[in-house]
Amino acid sequence: MNLLEDLYFLIGTDKVTINETLLRHHSGDESHHPKIEPDAVVFPESTEDVQKIVSYANEHQIAIVPYGAGSGLEGQAIPIKKGISINFERMDQILEVRPEDLTVKVQPGVTRHRLNDELKKYGLFFPVDPGADASIGGMAATNASGTLAVRYGVMRDQILNMEVVLADGRVIKTGSLARKSSSGYHLNGLFVGSEGTLGVFTEITLKLHGIPEYITAARCTFPSVRSCVDAAAAILTAGISIARVELVDARSIKQVNDFSGTNYPEEHSLFLEFHGNKSGNEEDIDFVQAIVEEAGCTGFVFETDSIKRANLWKARHELHYAFSHGFPKLSILSTDVCVPISKLPEIVEFTRNQLDGLGLDGGVLGHVGDGNFHATVLYDRNDPEQVKKMQQLNEELVAYALRVGGTCTGEHGVGIGKMKFQEQEHGAALDVMIALKNTLDPNNILNPGKVLPIEMKVY
Amino acid sequence: MNLLEDLYFLIGTDKVTINETLLRHHSGDESHHPKIEPDAVVFPESTEDVQKIVSYANEHQIAIVPYGAGSGLEGQAIPIKKGISINFERMDQILEVRPEDLTVKVQPGVTRHRLNDELKKYGLFFPVDPGADASIGGMAATNASGTLAVRYGVMRDQILNMEVVLADGRVIKTGSLARKSSSGYHLNGLFVGSEGTLGVFTEITLKLHGIPEYITAARCTFPSVRSCVDAAAAILTAGISIARVELVDARSIKQVNDFSGTNYPEEHSLFLEFHGNKSGNEEDIDFVQAIVEEAGCTGFVFETDSIKRANLWKARHELHYAFSHGFPKLSILSTDVCVPISKLPEIVEFTRNQLDGLGLDGGVLGHVGDGNFHATVLYDRNDPEQVKKMQQLNEELVAYALRVGGTCTGEHGVGIGKMKFQEQEHGAALDVMIALKNTLDPNNILNPGKVLPIEMKVY
Ligand SMILES: Cc1cc2nc3c(=O)[nH]c(=O)nc-3n(C[C@H](O)[C@H](O)[C@H](O)COP(=O)(O)OP(=O)(O)OC[C@H]3O[C@@H](n4cnc5c(N)ncnc54)[C@H](O)[C@@H]3O)c2cc1C
Ligand SMILES: Cc1cc2nc3c(=O)[nH]c(=O)nc-3n(C[C@H](O)[C@H](O)[C@H](O)COP(=O)(O)OP(=O)(O)OC[C@H]3O[C@@H](n4cnc5c(N)ncnc54)[C@H](O)[C@@H]3O)c2cc1C
Repeated sequence: MNLLEDLYFLIGTDKVTINETLLRHHSGDESHHPKIEPDAVVFPESTEDVQKIVSYANEHQIAIVPYGAGSGLEGQAIPIKKGISINFERMDQILEVRPEDLTVKVQPGVTRHRLNDELKKYGLFFPVDPGADASIGGMAATNASGTLAVRYGVMRDQILNMEVVLADGRVIKTGSLARKSSSGYHLNGLFVGSEGTLGVFTEITLKLHGIPEYITAARCTFPSVRSCVDAAAAILTAGISIARVELVDARSIKQVNDFSGTNYPEEHSLFLEFHGNKSGNEEDIDFVQAIVEEAGCTGFVFETDSIKRANLWKARHELHYAFSHGFPKLSILSTDVCVPISKLPEIVEFTRNQLDGLGLDGGVLGHVGDGNFHATVLYDRNDPEQVKKMQQLNEELVAYALRVGGTCTGEHGVGIGKMKFQEQEHGAALDVMIALKNTLDPNNILNPGKVLPIEMKVY
Repeated sequence: MNLLEDLYFLIGTDKVTINETLLRHHSGDESHHPKIEPDAVVFPESTEDVQKIVSYANEHQIAIVPYGAGSGLEGQAIPIKKGISINFERMDQILEVRPEDLTVKVQPGVTRHRLNDELKKYGLFFPVDPGADASIGGMAATNASGTLAVRYGVMRDQILNMEVVLADGRVIKTGSLARKSSSGYHLNGLFVGSEGTLGVFTEITLKLHGIPEYITAARCTFPSVRSCVDAAAAILTAGISIARVELVDARSIKQVNDFSGTNYPEEHSLFLEFHGNKSGNEEDIDFVQAIVEEAGCTGFVFETDSIKRANLWKARHELHYAFSHGFPKLSILSTDVCVPISKLPEIVEFTRNQLDGLGLDGGVLGHVGDGNFHATVLYDRNDPEQVKKMQQLNEELVAYALRVGGTCTGEHGVGIGKMKFQEQEHGAALDVMIALKNTLDPNNILNPGKVLPIEMKVY
């Protein structure tokens, strides 16, 4: 068997490469996990191409790994069993916008910025906004979310239907265009978040939302991370329908100011946003202002101007890059636990204290409206002491989150980094997940070595 | 093997019965499907009881069928392979309300009214409201929804975690207390909507919502069902966050007036509701009033008074009973397709015309904000001609819905009645569903003969 020749024959020479630069490009993602090169990279242009690749890989028990934008933070797209990396950049069409149905059908390679640029023409938007310009396929595969999840939900909540190529090359659709259904098992939900281990997505139909009539943003500063999160929790339990509640601690604000040229006060802050009509927003904001003042807010600034508002969220989205570009020689770990809201103030405070106590540099930030936050930890990968501390912090946070009923990953996914926590988090349910994986991918060719700690059969 | 003796021994004589009245009570639900009695009915009081029953049934290849409130409309709880009916009325505890986390943990037998009575004390509510006082277990098993789904989502959207007894008696948990997670496969989603065919739910943790600060309801009348639905579609595409948009046609309003003693104008109507703050609601309503007038609305009446508002929704919820009690000798079929919003006006008009054309008496109503509606069709089950027409209408509607990308059931579920449409709706995905079922329930003891057309192995 000659992999390259076979692939050339199957889908054409122009869609297959073993170019060293490209192999290297597909050897890693944005995570700190070690890079491993695939044996070949393919660039399918149709579902049929994908079917041919997957069927071939299944027959020959070769690992395949879908590759979106490579922005994953847990090594999901790293071909740790080598094999074939399937890059979706040529399957990047926006196939059908249906404004009256508030839906869009896309190919998996389209990125979220390009999608939203297109949707703007219709007065619509797609609300899932990870900090990277990720692909819709990758976002579906990791069940991504972002700053707007508190109002609009996560990736899984947006997906009406997908076309999926199964391990044996069969093609199925997982849903319909109906906004709700009680027909059959929920395959949408099962495939979303499966990180390329159950099937390869070739088309995705998403729910859309109208751009809100009126948007108001605000920043408020607090004396401690704990008081920030206390305030966020109070807003949520008051039942106010807020669109964004982001914690950005003082260390992160400093980094933002350095990187984005902003001059936000370098204090622990909440960034807020309200979506609705003008009078409704105003009433909500009055109420929220009273709540945050009660929680010790030391400054409340509106960002009504649409440019200032855009800058605020741009700065927030670029936070990860603010750290990585600011410290090009260091590596970054982004923790990602999610806990019940009532447990958030204490775990966020614990995190800030642990960072300081361990002498690690880094920020604490996150989508606190969902109970999800990140420590962005800078460390020198060549300094075993720092690596150990970084790992210690990550494990302490996961242990803490699981103890209070939370999860080891709120949005980044399992990949390589969170596999070791799956048994502790899911207990006997892990056996069910493994059984599902074995049923749908008996040869374990689909992104092997990720998500579930099962026997590796290939390569 | 003596089933009764064995069950007595396993869980105690006071939890097992073969009393003829009780067998009859467990032979059917609220649907038109033929009744079949189980061999025995059990009343478990704990997860351990359920484990014992299910393990025993699995060992002896006896069918088991969970039974909630028996309000299903597709025969889901009918023990068509006989065996053991598991009634959850003794597992009806509200185990833990966590107001700060906006969650509640319940046993499956608690009904939605009792849950909301308890939650009111905390200023909270649970938003899934089928027209019957269903059990939370049954609602989870059918992925129920109701009038508020357009704003708050369906049953599947509310479930954070479940304790599930698997076919072999193992107990798993399907999620966590975190509001979002990307950890492992989405077992919550898979088990919700599985209609007792993949596992038996023994505990359910739900998301809750704060009772909105300000609620306004309204009724508006239109010259045709089509103009009602045109108006609903226009409201939705305008991006207004409406909490309820219910179609009630003139025939149904007449039935409501007769049954509930109301005197709503007997015209095709939309019932609307807005949740928010006072000024926001007022601005939304002004906007909506303009939209519905554009669509031909002939009358717009507010129901601001909380008693009148409660009466409006009570009347809406009792519509099914208004028909069934009004015509005690007749049977009722409730169709349940769901289509993309843009296709709704034409299919609703088609439905109203078909009812009239076929000479069938009945109303057209539904949760039109989701694209989901019902024809409530009265027929005489002893008149083969009427039975044929009722079946024809049901099949025409399903065919129509599938043709335009919709689903055969928006909320009632598959049960017995929608099994025959599963292949057409899901195509090759049905094989995946069958594979999952075979993996999780290899002996096919869990509610056999429902949802998926697979070989029956038991009894
Ligand atoms: C600066 C920065 C900020 C971030 N912020 C967030 C955040 O706020 N929220 C968040 O959720 N994540 C965040 N992330 C993580 C990352 O952006 C997400 O995980 C994203 O969903 C990955 O998408 P991708 O296209 O880059 O996928 P990749 O990294 O290429 O792949 C991710 C996984 O998806 C699979 N996959 C890709 N395409 C397909 C397909 N067509 N079919 C099947 N499987 C496929 C891959 O095999 C892999 O398992 C951030 C990352 C960075 C670098
Ligand atoms: C007047 C009327 C109006 C209705 N309106 C609506 C509506 O608006 N929206 C809607 O969605 N439905 C509606 N329905 C249908 C019905 O109320 C729902 O399907 C409801 O979810 C059924 O719940 P139940 O407790 O009655 O379940 P049952 O009918 O007893 O059982 C339904 C299914 O759930 C399974 N089940 C029950 N408990 C468990 C458990 N603990 N573990 C696993 N499986 C279990 C059963 O085996 C069965 O398959 C209506 C019904 C009536 C009679």
